[in-house]
Amino acid sequence: MHFFSDNAAAIHPRVWAAMQAADAPDHGYDGDALSRRLDGAFSDLFGQPATALWVATGTAANCLALAAMVPPDGGVVCHREAHIEVDEGGAPGFYTHGAKLMLAEGDAAKLTTETISAVLEPIRDNVHQVQPRAISITQSTEYGRVYTPQEVAAIGALAQARDLWLHMDGARFANAVAHLGCHPAAVTVDAGVDALSFGFVKNGGMGAEAIVLFGEAQGLADPIRRARKRAGHLQSKGRYLAAQILALLEGDLWLTNARAANHAAAELAAAAGTRLIHPVEADEVFLVLSPAEAAALRNAGFDFYDWNAPPGTPGAARLVTAWNSNPAHVAALARAIAAL
Amino acid sequence: MHFFSDNAAAIHPRVWAAMQAADAPDHGYDGDALSRRLDGAFSDLFGQPATALWVATGTAANCLALAAMVPPDGGVVCHREAHIEVDEGGAPGFYTHGAKLMLAEGDAAKLTTETISAVLEPIRDNVHQVQPRAISITQSTEYGRVYTPQEVAAIGALAQARDLWLHMDGARFANAVAHLGCHPAAVTVDAGVDALSFGFVKNGGMGAEAIVLFGEAQGLADPIRRARKRAGHLQSKGRYLAAQILALLEGDLWLTNARAANHAAAELAAAAGTRLIHPVEADEVFLVLSPAEAAALRNAGFDFYDWNAPPGTPGAARLVTAWNSNPAHVAALARAIAAL
Amino acid sequence: MHFFSDNAAAIHPRVWAAMQAADAPDHGYDGDALSRRLDGAFSDLFGQPATALWVATGTAANCLALAAMVPPDGGVVCHREAHIEVDEGGAPGFYTHGAKLMLAEGDAAKLTTETISAVLEPIRDNVHQVQPRAISITQSTEYGRVYTPQEVAAIGALAQARDLWLHMDGARFANAVAHLGCHPAAVTVDAGVDALSFGFVKNGGMGAEAIVLFGEAQGLADPIRRARKRAGHLQSKGRYLAAQILALLEGDLWLTNARAANHAAAELAAAAGTRLIHPVEADEVFLVLSPAEAAALRNAGFDFYDWNAPPGTPGAARLVTAWNSNPAHVAALARAIAAL
Amino acid sequence: MHFFSDNAAAIHPRVWAAMQAADAPDHGYDGDALSRRLDGAFSDLFGQPATALWVATGTAANCLALAAMVPPDGGVVCHREAHIEVDEGGAPGFYTHGAKLMLAEGDAAKLTTETISAVLEPIRDNVHQVQPRAISITQSTEYGRVYTPQEVAAIGALAQARDLWLHMDGARFANAVAHLGCHPAAVTVDAGVDALSFGFVKNGGMGAEAIVLFGEAQGLADPIRRARKRAGHLQSKGRYLAAQILALLEGDLWLTNARAANHAAAELAAAAGTRLIHPVEADEVFLVLSPAEAAALRNAGFDFYDWNAPPGTPGAARLVTAWNSNPAHVAALARAIAAL
Repeated sequence: MHFFSDNAAAIHPRVWAAMQAADAPDHGYDGDALSRRLDGAFSDLFGQPATALWVATGTAANCLALAAMVPPDGGVVCHREAHIEVDEGGAPGFYTHGAKLMLAEGDAAKLTTETISAVLEPIRDNVHQVQPRAISITQSTEYGRVYTPQEVAAIGALAQARDLWLHMDGARFANAVAHLGCHPAAVTVDAGVDALSFGFVKNGGMGAEAIVLFGEAQGLADPIRRARKRAGHLQSKGRYLAAQILALLEGDLWLTNARAANHAAAELAAAAGTRLIHPVEADEVFLVLSPAEAAALRNAGFDFYDWNAPPGTPGAARLVTAWNSNPAHVAALARAIAAL
Repeated sequence: MHFFSDNAAAIHPRVWAAMQAADAPDHGYDGDALSRRLDGAFSDLFGQPATALWVATGTAANCLALAAMVPPDGGVVCHREAHIEVDEGGAPGFYTHGAKLMLAEGDAAKLTTETISAVLEPIRDNVHQVQPRAISITQSTEYGRVYTPQEVAAIGALAQARDLWLHMDGARFANAVAHLGCHPAAVTVDAGVDALSFGFVKNGGMGAEAIVLFGEAQGLADPIRRARKRAGHLQSKGRYLAAQILALLEGDLWLTNARAANHAAAELAAAAGTRLIHPVEADEVFLVLSPAEAAALRNAGFDFYDWNAPPGTPGAARLVTAWNSNPAHVAALARAIAAL
Repeated sequence: MHFFSDNAAAIHPRVWAAMQAADAPDHGYDGDALSRRLDGAFSDLFGQPATALWVATGTAANCLALAAMVPPDGGVVCHREAHIEVDEGGAPGFYTHGAKLMLAEGDAAKLTTETISAVLEPIRDNVHQVQPRAISITQSTEYGRVYTPQEVAAIGALAQARDLWLHMDGARFANAVAHLGCHPAAVTVDAGVDALSFGFVKNGGMGAEAIVLFGEAQGLADPIRRARKRAGHLQSKGRYLAAQILALLEGDLWLTNARAANHAAAELAAAAGTRLIHPVEADEVFLVLSPAEAAALRNAGFDFYDWNAPPGTPGAARLVTAWNSNPAHVAALARAIAAL
Repeated sequence: MHFFSDNAAAIHPRVWAAMQAADAPDHGYDGDALSRRLDGAFSDLFGQPATALWVATGTAANCLALAAMVPPDGGVVCHREAHIEVDEGGAPGFYTHGAKLMLAEGDAAKLTTETISAVLEPIRDNVHQVQPRAISITQSTEYGRVYTPQEVAAIGALAQARDLWLHMDGARFANAVAHLGCHPAAVTVDAGVDALSFGFVKNGGMGAEAIVLFGEAQGLADPIRRARKRAGHLQSKGRYLAAQILALLEGDLWLTNARAANHAAAELAAAAGTRLIHPVEADEVFLVLSPAEAAALRNAGFDFYDWNAPPGTPGAARLVTAWNSNPAHVAALARAIAAL
C-alpha cells in the first residue's frame, strides 16, 4: 500500500486511450494536430489568451520558464524549501546559466509579500549584486498548503511594482484549484501570474506537463521553444504528450482526479488529528510519528517516506495520496493512524 | 502516404503492451524494477558489462554522454553534417557548458581516420587552443551510410591512441546492425566505442532512448545520472521508458523492426537507380528529383522532405521509411519513382 | 580624506619600480621569468610546495579556484554575507557553470564547524539534491574579523572528513596574518586550506592577486590555467602582474603594508569605543553612527560608506584604512569620532 | 632580437607617466574621473556618440561584446582562422554560455559577403538549427591583412539586411587605420560596425583594451558592465586602465605607435620579396622559410615563431614588429632575410 508519492502513480485509462488514438500518422515534434490544439485548450480553460507548450517533466517546465525570464546574471526569489531549490539537482542553475536563487522564508513553504520584501530590500542596484528578475511560488506548496487568490494577487502586485516576473510551480496545481474551488484563472493570470508550470504527471498523466504563458509572457514562447529543443526536450513524437494533456483537460478530468487525491488526504488528515504538522489542503499529509509508530505502520503494509522531524517531536512522516489511491487502503491507513 | 521521417511513426503494439503492464505500482524515477533491469539487458545484448540509462530523446542521450566526456573547455570531433552539429539546436553547447564541436569532412557524413586526423593535427597543446577530448560518429550516418566494424575499429584505435573518448550517435543504430548482419558488439564495444546513444524512438518506441556505457566509460554513469536530473530528464514515471526499451530488446524486436524499415528503403532504392545520391544502407533514401518530379510525387499522395541539391542537379529529396511502412505505399512509391 | 575602501588606494613605490623593471623584453603570457618565479616564491613563503598563478582580480581568483574544485552540479558552503555571495555579481555561478552557493550563518561573517554542519547535515546524497564539494571562508572576513589557526584547522578537519575542498578568500589575508602574528602557513596549508586567493590589490598592488594551491590541490593548476585563458584573464604582459606580487613578497612588504593599515584601523577603533559593531582585527571598522553624526563627519571632510544598521541602532558606517592611510587624516578622524 | 609578437612589448613612457599620475586618490572600479572620460574621448575620436568600457584583455573585450549580442542558443559567423575561434581557449563558448561560432572561408582570414552568405544561406529558421545573431571580423586580420572601408561597409550592409550585429576584433585596429590612412570612423561606425574591440595592449599599453559601442549597440553597455563584473574583469583600480587608454589616444599616440610598427614590418616585407605569403599591410610578416633558413636566422639572434607552411612550401614563419621595434634589429633582420 503505497503512500510514497503521487509522482509514480498509474496512468488514467482515458489518458491511455488518448495516447493510443495518437498512433495515427501526423507531423513530428510539435507540428501535429494535438500539439497545435494546446494554445486553444488552455485559453479556453483560463478564459484568456494563453500559449502552452508540453514538456516531459516539472523540472524542465519550471526551469525553461525561469530561464526565459531571468538572465544568467539575474536572480529568482523563491522559498528556501522550494522544489527548484531543494529537489531539482541544480537544474535552475543549469537552465539559467548560473542565475541565483534568492531564498525567502515562510511557514509551510509559503512566501508572503513580507518575506519576499525582506529578500529584495537589501539588494543594492549595482553591478556587484545580483539583481532579482522573477519570483517563483509553488501552488500547492511543498508542504501541501494552498495560496488563496488574495495571497497570490498580493505577491503579483509586488512583482509588478518591482518589475519582476511571477512564476508558479504548479506540479500540484490541480490539487490547489480543487481545494479552493475557484476558477483556475483566479489564482493565476488574474492574480498576476505570468507563467504556470501546470502539472499533469502527478495527476494521471505519464510524462507531460504544460508551460502556460499569459499576457505579455506569451512573448517568451519563442525563446522557450528554442531552449526546449536545446535542452533535448523537444520529443519527436510530441503528439503523445499533447494527447495526455488534452485528455486530462477534457471534461475537467484534471479536477476530478485532484479531488479524489485531496479527498483521500483529507481522510488521513482527519485520522491524524493533532499529529498534523501542517493543515492538509492538497494531497500531502505531514504528521508527527515516532520511529516506533512508523515501524508499526510499515509492518502493517503501509509504505511512505520519513520526513525531517519538527523541533521537539520524535519524528515525522509524509503521506501522499493520488488520483487512484485505493479507498480501502486509505481507510485502512486512516484507521491505523487513529489507532496509534 | 508519409515518408517524412521514421521519427514520428506509430508505437509498436508490443511496446504499448509493455508500457501498460508497467501501470502496476512501483518506485519512482529509476528505482523501479524495469529500470533496474536495463544494465543486465544491455550487458546480455553486447556480451560484456554495460551500464545503461534511459532518456527521452536522442539529443539528450548524445549530449549527456558527450558532456560527461568533455569538459567545458574541451572539444568533440564530429562530422560537419553530424546531427549534434546541425540539428540539435545548440544542445551540445548547452550540455557541455560551451565546449566546441570540431568539424571534420567525409563523404555522406562518414568520418575517416584521415579526416579526423586532419582536424587533430594542427591543434597545439596549449591553453590558447581548445583541446579535443572525444570523437563522435553517427551510425548509421545522417545520409544513411553505415560504418563497418573495421571502419569503427580504425577510428576506435585512433581515439585510444589520442586518449579521446569515442561516442556513437546510434539514433538509427538498429538499422546499421540490421544492414551489417553483425553482432552489435562488433561495431561498438569491440571496436572501441565507449558510449552509445542507442535509439528506440525511430524504431517502434515512443519516447525512450538508451545511453549505453562500456568498459571504463561505465564510470561516467554517476555523473550522467546527476546531469540527467539537472537537465530535467529524470522522469518520475521512468518505468514507462524502461518498459519501451525492454520490449524492443525482447526477442530482438529492435532488429525485426529495423529490417522492415531497411527492406522498404531498399525497395525504393532499387526503383531510384541512378537517381541515388548515396548508397542506401539503412532506412533513408536520398535521390535527385527535380521540382517538377517532386511535385508529381506529392500530387500522387506521397509526402517527403526536399533536401539540399548536390551541385549540378536540379533538386533532391529525402525519403525515410519506418518499422511500420505500409508495403502497399512503399510499392506504390517505388513504382511512381521508376515511372518518372 | 578617503575611508571608502582599501581597494582603490595608490600603488606602493616598490611595486611601481618592479613593474617598470619588467619593461625588459621577455616572453608573453606566463612564460616570462617573473611569472616562472611565483611557485618558488610562494613555496618559500609557506614553507611547503605551492603552485601559484597570477590573476587581475579577487573575484577571478576566488571563482577560478572554486570552479576547479566544484563541478557545475555541485555546491560551495559559504557565509551568507561572503563576498562571493554578495558582491561578485554572480561570478561564482558564471565560473562554475551554475553550481550553488550554500549559505551558512555565523557572527561577523565567520563560519564555524557548527554552522557549516547545519548546512551539510540535511543534504541527502541523491541526484535530486546538489551535493557540497567545497567550503569557502574569508580571511579576514567581510566584517574585519580574523579566523585563528585553531578555527581554520577545525574547519579544515571538517572539510577533510567530508571530502570537501577548503578555499580561503584572502582578499585581506595580509591583514589577518598581520593581526595574528603567526606564520602564514599556520592559517592556511597547515590548517587544511587547499587553495588561497592571496590578495595584493588592497595592499599596495595595482591589479594582481595570486591563486595559491597547496598539496593535492596543486593538481588543479592545469585546469585553472585553462580556465584562466578561457575567462580572458591570461594577460599577454603577465610579467607586470608577477612583478607586483614579487615586489610585495620581497622583504615581507605585504606584512609591512598590512600592519600599517591595521594600525590605522586600531586607532579609529579605539576612538569608536562602544560604537563598534564588531571587534576590529584588520583594516575595517564598523560602527554605529546616526545619520546626523555621519553627516557631521562628512562635513568635516571624511568620506566613507554607510552600512546596514544593526537592529536597534540609528545607523551604521564602514571605515576602511589602507597601507597608505595618511596618519594625520586617521588621527583627525579618530578625534572627530571621539568628539561625536 | 624578439620578433615573436607585439603582445609582450614594453610599455610606452607616456603610458607609464599617465598611470603614475593616476595614483591620486579617486573612486574605485569605474567611478573615477579617468574612466568617466572614456565615453567622451571615444566619441570625439569617432565623431559620433560612443560608449566605451575598459577591460584587461582582447579576449575579454571580444567575448563580452559578443555575449551581449548573441544569446546562448545563437551563433556568430567568423573566419575559421579568427582569433576567437583558434586562440581564445574557448572563451566565446564560456562568455556566451555555449553559442556557436559558424566558420566561414576567405583568403588571409578575411571574410567577404560571399563567404559569409555561404554560411548563412543553408541555415533554416527553425528550432533545430542554431540561428546566427552576429558577424565578427578581425581588423587587421590574423594574417595582417586590412579590410578597406568599402569591404567593411559591404559586410555591414549584409549584417543589417540580415538583422545581425557586426563586431570588429580590433586587437590591431591601430595598425589597420595607420595602413589605410582613413578616419577611424570610416572602417567602423560609418561602415556598420556596432561594437569594436579597440586594442591598446599590443600598441604600447600594459593591460587595457576598450570595448567601443556605437549607435544602437550602446544599449548593450549596461549588460556588458554586469557581465564584466560577473567575469571578474571589473578591476577596483580601474583608473589605471583608463589612464593607459587615454594616454594612447592623447595626441594620436596610438597612430604614431602603429605607424612605427607597420613601418618596421614593411621593411621586413621588402626584404622578403617573393617569400611573402600574404601582402604586408600591418605589423605581421608571414614568409616562406625552410627549416634550415629558419635555423640560420635564429643562429643569427632572431627569435620568431614557426607557422603552418602553405602547401608546396618547405616551411613558414611569422615575424611581428611592434611600436618599439629596434630599428637596428629590424634592419639587421631585413638584411639577413635578403641574404638567405
